Amino acid sequence: MSSSPSSDDVRSYLFERNNWGRWGEHDERGAINLITPEKRLSALASVRTGETLSLSRPISTRASGNNPQPALHYVKTWHGSGDEVSPRSATAESGGFAADFYGVFYHGCSTTHLDALSHVWDEQGLYNNRDPADHITSDGVTFGGVQHWSSDIVTRAVLLDIPRYRGVDYVSVDSPVHGWELEGAARQQGVALTPGDAVCVYMGREKWQADNPDTLYGDHAAGERPGMHASCLPFLRDNDVSVLGWDMLDAKPWAYDVAFTVHGSIWAYGLALVDNMVLEPLAEACAARRAHDFMLLVAPLVVPGGTGSPVNPIALL
Amino acid sequence: MSSSPSSDDVRSYLFERNNWGRWGEHDERGAINLITPEKRLSALASVRTGETLSLSRPISTRASGNNPQPALHYVKTWHGSGDEVSPRSATAESGGFAADFYGVFYHGCSTTHLDALSHVWDEQGLYNNRDPADHITSDGVTFGGVQHWSSDIVTRAVLLDIPRYRGVDYVSVDSPVHGWELEGAARQQGVALTPGDAVCVYMGREKWQADNPDTLYGDHAAGERPGMHASCLPFLRDNDVSVLGWDMLDAKPWAYDVAFTVHGSIWAYGLALVDNMVLEPLAEACAARRAHDFMLLVAPLVVPGGTGSPVNPIALL
Amino acid sequence: MSSSPSSDDVRSYLFERNNWGRWGEHDERGAINLITPEKRLSALASVRTGETLSLSRPISTRASGNNPQPALHYVKTWHGSGDEVSPRSATAESGGFAADFYGVFYHGCSTTHLDALSHVWDEQGLYNNRDPADHITSDGVTFGGVQHWSSDIVTRAVLLDIPRYRGVDYVSVDSPVHGWELEGAARQQGVALTPGDAVCVYMGREKWQADNPDTLYGDHAAGERPGMHASCLPFLRDNDVSVLGWDMLDAKPWAYDVAFTVHGSIWAYGLALVDNMVLEPLAEACAARRAHDFMLLVAPLVVPGGTGSPVNPIALL
Amino acid sequence: MSSSPSSDDVRSYLFERNNWGRWGEHDERGAINLITPEKRLSALASVRTGETLSLSRPISTRASGNNPQPALHYVKTWHGSGDEVSPRSATAESGGFAADFYGVFYHGCSTTHLDALSHVWDEQGLYNNRDPADHITSDGVTFGGVQHWSSDIVTRAVLLDIPRYRGVDYVSVDSPVHGWELEGAARQQGVALTPGDAVCVYMGREKWQADNPDTLYGDHAAGERPGMHASCLPFLRDNDVSVLGWDMLDAKPWAYDVAFTVHGSIWAYGLALVDNMVLEPLAEACAARRAHDFMLLVAPLVVPGGTGSPVNPIALL
Repeated sequence: MSSSPSSDDVRSYLFERNNWGRWGEHDERGAINLITPEKRLSALASVRTGETLSLSRPISTRASGNNPQPALHYVKTWHGSGDEVSPRSATAESGGFAADFYGVFYHGCSTTHLDALSHVWDEQGLYNNRDPADHITSDGVTFGGVQHWSSDIVTRAVLLDIPRYRGVDYVSVDSPVHGWELEGAARQQGVALTPGDAVCVYMGREKWQADNPDTLYGDHAAGERPGMHASCLPFLRDNDVSVLGWDMLDAKPWAYDVAFTVHGSIWAYGLALVDNMVLEPLAEACAARRAHDFMLLVAPLVVPGGTGSPVNPIALL
Repeated sequence: MSSSPSSDDVRSYLFERNNWGRWGEHDERGAINLITPEKRLSALASVRTGETLSLSRPISTRASGNNPQPALHYVKTWHGSGDEVSPRSATAESGGFAADFYGVFYHGCSTTHLDALSHVWDEQGLYNNRDPADHITSDGVTFGGVQHWSSDIVTRAVLLDIPRYRGVDYVSVDSPVHGWELEGAARQQGVALTPGDAVCVYMGREKWQADNPDTLYGDHAAGERPGMHASCLPFLRDNDVSVLGWDMLDAKPWAYDVAFTVHGSIWAYGLALVDNMVLEPLAEACAARRAHDFMLLVAPLVVPGGTGSPVNPIALL
Repeated sequence: MSSSPSSDDVRSYLFERNNWGRWGEHDERGAINLITPEKRLSALASVRTGETLSLSRPISTRASGNNPQPALHYVKTWHGSGDEVSPRSATAESGGFAADFYGVFYHGCSTTHLDALSHVWDEQGLYNNRDPADHITSDGVTFGGVQHWSSDIVTRAVLLDIPRYRGVDYVSVDSPVHGWELEGAARQQGVALTPGDAVCVYMGREKWQADNPDTLYGDHAAGERPGMHASCLPFLRDNDVSVLGWDMLDAKPWAYDVAFTVHGSIWAYGLALVDNMVLEPLAEACAARRAHDFMLLVAPLVVPGGTGSPVNPIALL
Repeated sequence: MSSSPSSDDVRSYLFERNNWGRWGEHDERGAINLITPEKRLSALASVRTGETLSLSRPISTRASGNNPQPALHYVKTWHGSGDEVSPRSATAESGGFAADFYGVFYHGCSTTHLDALSHVWDEQGLYNNRDPADHITSDGVTFGGVQHWSSDIVTRAVLLDIPRYRGVDYVSVDSPVHGWELEGAARQQGVALTPGDAVCVYMGREKWQADNPDTLYGDHAAGERPGMHASCLPFLRDNDVSVLGWDMLDAKPWAYDVAFTVHGSIWAYGLALVDNMVLEPLAEACAARRAHDFMLLVAPLVVPGGTGSPVNPIALL
């Protein structure tokens, strides 16, 4: 019915249909501008039971092939409180407290995280015509930092369940998700997108990894991984999607002469991407309630000049 | 009208009125159990305009008297994408990406953060009759970790504006906030609490600090600081409060023979505390709209065995 | 010729022959007291050519089965100097500088490091009759911290080459190094120990790992690894060894009812251990020059309350 | 007797008298090439008593105006040993061990550290005609990394005691140390430099800071600080100095049109600089023994691609 786009098509998706200037030349919020107060008010209608789900993986301190830069977690313990405090092992004999350090290099394929507009660029630069050489420093970014989205990402979201649509357990390497499948899944699930929606695309990553233990999803050297195809870009642009949450990422190899395919929606359209979401329980819940829309809450840490944030996205059903 | 409680009173608030066992002897969620799906559904009525506010301070990498353990922020930059990637300064000439490391020792008086049930204990131990010697380790806690609240803290919240109630700019050292003032402020603002509500107590910390530059709020050695008095404990317990968010913390000195006064609500009642909130803009917004309730969203990082989390609380108005 | 000691023997080596009190009840320097200025002066005679070798592995930021807690390395770059400095990518067009953050959890089997007297204890406690509950805190130790050895570890050292003594490539799991072999190797190599010497025991770890790629030296769950046997303890004690440097560690399983076998020399005798040394090039150099003594320089980072330090031991030949 | 050099003079010191190409176009060791095995052998003659001194400051986890990026130190504790290990507070009842994480951003004015050849550059680039844009990445450097000096810095050193030469307590802002004073101090102390020597310049930093509590040595915004003047550059070059250790750094303001004055000796001459040494006890010891030469041992952590290393320099007297 449909066929893969040509390389010219994909470049056109990104370079000709970008959102640069759409919200002003100084804009640093991108497609998140589509999430207006009115949008949020109307999104309340998608809450039906008040149940919630965390869409975050646990942050892991264990190194593995899928987690090559494990998080740091150190707990310190003190005896006493108030003015008289001393470091001491925890004992009940008197009061005390514990406090911990978290360290996390959160981008990559392990931690659930938000990509800010400063995270990626292509040959023409960052979102809204900015030169990365001017704005990306080792001490933080001066354009497109995650702090611009501190209070914004509370909106209606739509779950698209690709394995259910296809009648399989998971998306595989030889069959990446195409744009027409996103449309088909939405239609099958009876859900229509409206501007400013977040889209969560479930692809069955955990089941895929369990069935493919020798091919690590996070192994960059592998050169291939299942996920979304460049043909999905027009869907995101045409529907004025604000946020893309997914469990799998861009399919590899991406086979087109661009730096990024679906991740290109960051610099081109100004999308907020939430990588490595846990979506299987949400997919099951949506199927059970026969409703695939809900409210999505993403509250990034307010790090000035950050290229994103580890996040714990919450679905309010 | 009212007078400060005696030391026996305060011990009674904490030790005799605790919530241990209320939600089962194995419970690790404490007062967050009060936030039911039904509670969340009814909380939707407190959303009026769809506007949002972040209640988080920016995470700061600059050391100061108020920030003795500054956060770490390091950005790495790569050239290319996909399979051919090399560390390189950011240039537009081809695609690339930036990714950063965050490190934060988030407890204390600087970072906006959530305290989990494992954060503090008194002479009788942790919440729900647990011995800290059994559960607090330098590698993480085995009871009351923050991961038990991953999807829970989405509820109705009430803002209590103490400076406005008192007709002053901020709470000062010689006049801590008492429990009867919390009741008075709620009455004056025309807002009633219901079980499972979060309470955000605005005390004017930023204005106080600006007027008292030589007394650092975060200086533990100072021995005194403005904030909430132990007499507030019954208010939290009687109203079945689930979450306490505040800009100032427990008033010091706390002058009672307990390890913690208001922070004692963690181990005694199972409350979730969100310390160092930014509440001034919220107080102004609530006054302007003449409505002091709203929805509060707190999405902690999912760190198994963590004693809390840096958070970006969002108010949905 | 010799046979393995009984469990009672090993307990006797550690518990009855300890050095507690030998240098005073307040001593925190242990066997390093044996390195006197006179010892160092006489050690100069072991320097023959002025050549040097680093005995350190590179610190690695790559996670692997042998390096489960990889080091952190982040570089920041600035443009300018003096008073006018801004974070910026490195360019030659004007001056600038780069500075980096190192983070390392250095104990374990990956990083070359020094163990301080506070690192391990057995049922009777830490070195010199100290209770770990009193001195080990999550914020640093208050007894036996590495800072007590800041300027001390400059002494004569003797290299014992076990594979050469045995005529094999490396020590294997089924044949740990016994005490009588240390004596035999010294005799064969024509080198005599004197009090205060450091002993470096080469066992061929890199060659062993290359031949045993599926058994990771650093895999604690494996339950077995090649290395030194508990029978080596009397050699260390009888010869008044000050420092033990080794490429392999205690052989596992250690099969005796003690918390540590060779590592027990820390709490029992007050030895300084330097784990994960690179000794193959040194062994080759010693064989070539037909002299197995040299000067060893170990300069730990001065971290007050540290349980050790990553180090770069240097052999001055 | 002497007068300050002109701006042209200083540029000439750095740009015309550089050591680029002196040890080959691929050299990454710079002036450390001057430390030959023969040099080290002859340096043994400067050891007289076998006493040692650590020239390192303690690494500090406390933030202050002089330590704006405090080190991290977290200790973890385990119960048991060998195969059965669990995180647990330290108790003597059975064996256990403690292990710690160190994190340090070591450049700046607080930590004693070594600057590698990749640390600074001027308008012509890095040492040996390298472009920083090619070699400095956020993931480590690819030229002039500290690992090239892993085993090298063991050499004769000369202590120059400027306060004693001047008859004052410390060097002050209005009177930076000039090159002719280095010569004068060496002459007065009766010590002659030979190629490959390290030079340690004592300027009295701790005493200066104690007398000037309101002017922080590490305050970059201050714009001025006592230290060594650009006129010292020829002394370093003419004497073929390999290492410069100092307690104060380049005097500020540096008043010349170069990116760095004395720090320029890194990129121009290939010198190894050891910043923030503790030299007062060494100065006293040298005066007492009436001998100002000794052996200096600097053992940097072996971090591939590092721009330097925190170090604990040891003087062997």
